[in-house]
Amino acid sequence: MKIMHYSKAEAKQFDSDQVKGVTGRVAIGKADGADNFCMRIFELEKDGFSPRHTHDWEHEIFIHQGRGEAFRDGSWEPVSPGTALFIPGNEEHQIRNTGDGKLVFVCLIPSGAPEL
Amino acid sequence: MKIMHYSKAEAKQFDSDQVKGVTGRVAIGKADGADNFCMRIFELEKDGFSPRHTHDWEHEIFIHQGRGEAFRDGSWEPVSPGTALFIPGNEEHQIRNTGDGKLVFVCLIPSGAPEL
Repeated sequence: MKIMHYSKAEAKQFDSDQVKGVTGRVAIGKADGADNFCMRIFELEKDGFSPRHTHDWEHEIFIHQGRGEAFRDGSWEPVSPGTALFIPGNEEHQIRNTGDGKLVFVCLIPSGAPEL
Repeated sequence: MKIMHYSKAEAKQFDSDQVKGVTGRVAIGKADGADNFCMRIFELEKDGFSPRHTHDWEHEIFIHQGRGEAFRDGSWEPVSPGTALFIPGNEEHQIRNTGDGKLVFVCLIPSGAPEL
């Protein structure tokens, strides 16, 4: 059994035209023997956003901390701690931080998709 | 895309000799088209605990709120918001609330296992 605070996992920074102020970590993945699905934790700094993109694998997301919005079908929907999101494969999506502090969420993907 | 606070999902109560003060909800599952893995949210009331048991599917857990402990290899390990746990299949496990408020965690299972 692995028990670890997510902040102890290796951090990868994302900053470009498409993504701003994002830190990603693999909390549970292939290296742990998790062969079916992978848990990543993302932190978005104030005003940060994930890329608006589409891919053929699904996301299961749980908002842990902070305030933000998710892009769905052309509009922005509010998300807050306790919000669960299911993004089916091939559906466009994006998440942005609209709060004053960090937005932290758990994002799971099936095996076969890139872990980070 | 489904966006829903977990508290809006149907709640199932668990109370017996083996489990105390546990409320479970399926936040994302088969009914949503999630064919690979399932997201459940569990709330343990003060002094509540999940059953000590073993099964052949794995858990990926993320502690959202509260204070607790996880049973691993004969001893209790502390868990708190941000702790990730990977419980491989066929490993004995149990979680208990040791805080003054609710212990809330996300628990994911692969498809094929009972959703709740």
